[in-house]
Amino acid sequence: MAEASDRARKFSRDNADRFVSELDALLRIPSLSGDPERAGDVRRAAEWLVDHLRSIGAENVAVMETAGHPIAYGEWLGAGPDKPTVLVYGHYDVVPASIEDGWDTEPFEPVVIDGKIYARGATDDKGQLMIHVNAFESYMKTGDGPPVNLKFLLEGEEEVSSPNLRPFLESHLELLAADVCVISDSSMPTIEEPAILHSLRGMTYVEIHVEGPHDDLHSGFYGGAVHNPALALVEILSKMHNADHSIAVPGFYDDVVPLTDLERTEVAKTAISDEQLLQATGVPAPWGEDAYTIKERVSARPTLEINGIGSGWTGPGPKTIIPATAMAKVSCRLVGNQDPQKIYEQIRDYVESIAPDTVRVAVNLITTGEPALIDFTIPEMQAAARAYEKAWGATPAFTRGGGSIPVVADFSNLMKMPVVMMGYGLDTDGLHGTNEHFTLEMFHRGIETSIVYLEELAQLPR
Amino acid sequence: MAEASDRARKFSRDNADRFVSELDALLRIPSLSGDPERAGDVRRAAEWLVDHLRSIGAENVAVMETAGHPIAYGEWLGAGPDKPTVLVYGHYDVVPASIEDGWDTEPFEPVVIDGKIYARGATDDKGQLMIHVNAFESYMKTGDGPPVNLKFLLEGEEEVSSPNLRPFLESHLELLAADVCVISDSSMPTIEEPAILHSLRGMTYVEIHVEGPHDDLHSGFYGGAVHNPALALVEILSKMHNADHSIAVPGFYDDVVPLTDLERTEVAKTAISDEQLLQATGVPAPWGEDAYTIKERVSARPTLEINGIGSGWTGPGPKTIIPATAMAKVSCRLVGNQDPQKIYEQIRDYVESIAPDTVRVAVNLITTGEPALIDFTIPEMQAAARAYEKAWGATPAFTRGGGSIPVVADFSNLMKMPVVMMGYGLDTDGLHGTNEHFTLEMFHRGIETSIVYLEELAQLPR
Repeated sequence: MAEASDRARKFSRDNADRFVSELDALLRIPSLSGDPERAGDVRRAAEWLVDHLRSIGAENVAVMETAGHPIAYGEWLGAGPDKPTVLVYGHYDVVPASIEDGWDTEPFEPVVIDGKIYARGATDDKGQLMIHVNAFESYMKTGDGPPVNLKFLLEGEEEVSSPNLRPFLESHLELLAADVCVISDSSMPTIEEPAILHSLRGMTYVEIHVEGPHDDLHSGFYGGAVHNPALALVEILSKMHNADHSIAVPGFYDDVVPLTDLERTEVAKTAISDEQLLQATGVPAPWGEDAYTIKERVSARPTLEINGIGSGWTGPGPKTIIPATAMAKVSCRLVGNQDPQKIYEQIRDYVESIAPDTVRVAVNLITTGEPALIDFTIPEMQAAARAYEKAWGATPAFTRGGGSIPVVADFSNLMKMPVVMMGYGLDTDGLHGTNEHFTLEMFHRGIETSIVYLEELAQLPR
Repeated sequence: MAEASDRARKFSRDNADRFVSELDALLRIPSLSGDPERAGDVRRAAEWLVDHLRSIGAENVAVMETAGHPIAYGEWLGAGPDKPTVLVYGHYDVVPASIEDGWDTEPFEPVVIDGKIYARGATDDKGQLMIHVNAFESYMKTGDGPPVNLKFLLEGEEEVSSPNLRPFLESHLELLAADVCVISDSSMPTIEEPAILHSLRGMTYVEIHVEGPHDDLHSGFYGGAVHNPALALVEILSKMHNADHSIAVPGFYDDVVPLTDLERTEVAKTAISDEQLLQATGVPAPWGEDAYTIKERVSARPTLEINGIGSGWTGPGPKTIIPATAMAKVSCRLVGNQDPQKIYEQIRDYVESIAPDTVRVAVNLITTGEPALIDFTIPEMQAAARAYEKAWGATPAFTRGGGSIPVVADFSNLMKMPVVMMGYGLDTDGLHGTNEHFTLEMFHRGIETSIVYLEELAQLPR
């Protein structure tokens, strides 16, 4: 068995330059999912992927329609029903980029400089998704194909919050059924510190509206006799945290899965020092839950943040009004197994319980996203760790992401499969910024790691 | 002596229609002090007043220059040095008005309908200042002139916050020296409830700025580990009031002159019921210092209001940022004898003392205005009350205004003279709004009350 993966790895090394050329071709397509005028380019990227998958031996390939941009699909089930099936998720759409934004080169004319390929989408996510496509080809061209069955689900709307992905999953549960989902759309701090994401935070986003007088009032005429809505809002928001910076909403932590000692040890491997935090953000001092480290606070603990607050006059000079209304945007990052809808109801009930009867208060739900927490001790996760050790040359850390990728929760919760997030980017790759790039050494190591991972998965007891 | 005032009163009644015609002429001049294109009209109004004062016997009349719009001045010192001198302050400038704003008639083409004259400036302040001019004429045309010396100081910049008045006063202290200042630029609730204002609130207006990270942060990457500036601001603002709604800034009340029983009785005469407050403002319930009535809260007590607050994202939809900054506009209405500068320093010191070291906080002074509190038991005040009883036909209430008119503090504090605010408007006159008007019955009663007041002042022991 190891001979098959060795042959595939050699093939991938021998064809490294060609793989870069093919990635170059894909990067030239400005598949901006947020720009209606680029819809044709988005589709062209899907067609390129489908054509490429067909050309290297994938079957049942199709540009599959959704209510928005299409999904590029292809599969290879040649390993047989007694072998595991791996669903590879990636996205071929990108966020906008223009040389006027400050790029040193044209974002859709890839160039390789000092071992890095510069282009929009290089790391997010065209480069990372092609790793798995190239791993598949490397097996196909050197023997009987991969040791597992493969399904490629390549989306064109990730950068616009995947509005049509969940309905697509729900209507194609059988087509997409698999034993494990692999996603490469994340990063590691340095090339020698690979990371497997096993947790993402969910979200409950609300608006709190406070209404007082029917119009702004003259503070000279009514100041002192009516409850200023901005003050009422301030009073409410000041009661959302306890003195130890934990969140005061009753029941908020009820469903939080406690960090185990093993997990805390794992989190500590990617610790952020006070100094690093101050350097990165510019704040004068850290803040947060005393009982948790900085890295735990930003990844393994739920939060409640004020994202915005607005009331009355904030322009230049004095304006002596009592504002008629005040509002705040408040969002929580959630961790497993918090339920976003339940959290909304808890926040709403709490705010209503502390709201004074001198104003009118409403808490409106804006959006939710489920958290995802995948146990990293399961065989599929440990197999990934072994793949890194063998092919990347370093033991990966199991990390928690502080942000939210709702699709991960969908695979995990809706499709009941573990999601293994093998991110091959670097934190410094400039995704969504200027001069986005992907290090070719990471690209090639990633292909070999993917090759070995498929082998490790094939060897798991079923 | 009473014969002189009787003759003057009769004259004023006999010439009532002419007085209205003259007011009509003044109201036709669009003396908008805030509109540079109307500077010529503003000057024309000053010239009209000076010409008119000269024509009825005033001396030393002049359009006096300032750095902005001019001051119309005139005096009559014929009562002699052993008689008191009365300084009449008024303003001839107006705020903008256009029929497009919803007026029923052209704002600068006065019309009399149902005993009211409609025009911009009718009540604020051309009609009210002409009351004193007409009282002066009524004495001049019926005998040897008024029983007191008179000085008319008619300003053209009141509606733009009198930027040049204080320097003018400081450089003309001798010219303007007087025993009492009379201002008619306020109102009463109904014609049968005349009011003498004896207190106005001052102001300290500040901005509180909170800075945290050097840029907005992604709440997924840093949420939970840095102090959200909006939260820090909220926490600071929530500590500005005590549980009983009094203000928590140490020393804030140190210089407040306590309300006497007599003053509370006087304030109670113009009480506002809970129902009236709810009706007028639309708030669901009153709020404020438990130990004080609504009317006391809005006029005799200092306040601290949030006039505006801004941070982060307040547009539509979710944006998951930790804002880099947060700011609030906060202003206090002050009462005698609070010092606006000292209050600023107290607020600044308090905010700095409660500000956490996890953010950077600054408190900037935007503007100040001194409060004015005139003892209504002094002879000049009681004389005014008698004048109302004799000429208006009702006993006036001594009231406190909740707003700020800095010029009153200037007369009181800088020029060391009591200020008697005999407002002849109605609360419903629409000043600064559409269809501003002045009730002719108030105009004529005002002239007679002014005539009698001068006589009452002349009879005070010196």
